[in-house]
Amino acid sequence: MKSTDRHGPAGVNADALKRLRRAEGQVRGIIRMVEEEKYCIDILDQIEAARSALRKAGQLILRRHIDHCVTGAVRSGGAESDALIDELMLALDRQGR
Amino acid sequence: MKSTDRHGPAGVNADALKRLRRAEGQVRGIIRMVEEEKYCIDILDQIEAARSALRKAGQLILRRHIDHCVTGAVRSGGAESDALIDELMLALDRQGR
Amino acid sequence: MKSTDRHGPAGVNADALKRLRRAEGQVRGIIRMVEEEKYCIDILDQIEAARSALRKAGQLILRRHIDHCVTGAVRSGGAESDALIDELMLALDRQGR
Amino acid sequence: MKSTDRHGPAGVNADALKRLRRAEGQVRGIIRMVEEEKYCIDILDQIEAARSALRKAGQLILRRHIDHCVTGAVRSGGAESDALIDELMLALDRQGR
Repeated sequence: MKSTDRHGPAGVNADALKRLRRAEGQVRGIIRMVEEEKYCIDILDQIEAARSALRKAGQLILRRHIDHCVTGAVRSGGAESDALIDELMLALDRQGR
Repeated sequence: MKSTDRHGPAGVNADALKRLRRAEGQVRGIIRMVEEEKYCIDILDQIEAARSALRKAGQLILRRHIDHCVTGAVRSGGAESDALIDELMLALDRQGR
Repeated sequence: MKSTDRHGPAGVNADALKRLRRAEGQVRGIIRMVEEEKYCIDILDQIEAARSALRKAGQLILRRHIDHCVTGAVRSGGAESDALIDELMLALDRQGR
Repeated sequence: MKSTDRHGPAGVNADALKRLRRAEGQVRGIIRMVEEEKYCIDILDQIEAARSALRKAGQLILRRHIDHCVTGAVRSGGAESDALIDELMLALDRQGR
C-alpha cells in the first residue's frame, strides 16, 4: 500500500501540522514560564491549552485515518477491515483520557 | 510576595522541567512523523504520550502551588485564602479534560 | 432502515447494559455515601469508578455503531457514508473529556 | 473528628446530591435507550451528559473537602496536613481521565 493510499495527497496534513507547530511553541513557552517562575495557575492554563491543541491535531489525524484507511478497507471488505476497526477502537480507548 | 514565597527555592521545578522538555521532544517527533506520513495510529499514540507528559508536569506544578501558595495563604487566614481556593477550583475545572 | 440493520440481533447490547446497570448501582451507592457523609476521597473515587463504567459502556456502543451503521453506509457508498463519518467525528469530539 | 468538622453543617451537600440524582436519572434513561435500541449517537451523547453531571458533583465534593478537611489540617499544621495534601493529589491524579 503506497502512502498516498493511506494518507491522501500531499498537503492534506497541513492543518494538523499547523496545530502541532502551535503546540510545540506553546510547550516551549511553558518551559520558559517555569524557568522564569511565573504564576502556577497561568502555567497550568497554558498546559491545558497545549494539551487541547494536541487533542485537536489528533482528531484531524483520526479523521484522515477513518476517511482513507478504514473506509478503504471496509470497501475492500474481508478480514483486514475488521482488524483495522479493532485497531481503531483500541486507539480510541487509549485516547482522550 | 517574592517569587521564592510562591515557588520555593530554585531547582524545585527541575522535575516539571524535565517532563516538559520530554513533551517538547515528543511534539517535535510527532511533527516529523506527520511530515514523513507515518502510520496514523502510531502518530495518535505519540500524541497521547505527549499529552500524558504534559498532564504529569501539570500535576507537579499543581502540587507545588498547593504546597507553597495555597498552604501559606490558609495559614495566614483571611480572605486571600478563600480567593486562592476559588482560583484553584476553577483551574481544576479547566484541567484534565 | 430497521433497527436490526442498525443494531444487530437482539442481545448484542447485553454487555453494554450490564455495565450501565453497574454504573446505575454505583451512582445510587454514591448518593448514599453523600447522605451518610462518608469520607470525601472515597466518594470521589466511587465517582471516578462510575464515570469509568459509563465510558466503557460508551466504547461498546461506539463499536457497535461503527461495525453496523458506519460500515454498512461505507459499503453502500455515497453521501450517506460521509455524513455518518462527520457525525461520528463530532460525537468523538464531545466524548472522553 | 466529627463528621461536621469534615463536612460542614447538614444541607451543604444538597447541590452535589441534586446533581447525583440527575445523573442517576440519566443513567436509567440511557439503559432504556439501549433496551429500546435508540440511535447510537444519541445514546453516546447521553452517556457524556451523565459523565459530565458526575464530574460536576465530584468538583463540589472536592471543594468541600478542600474547604473543610484540608484547610482545617493546614491550620492545625504538622504531619496530618502533608498527608492530606498527598492524599488529595493522588485523588486528583485518578480523577478527570
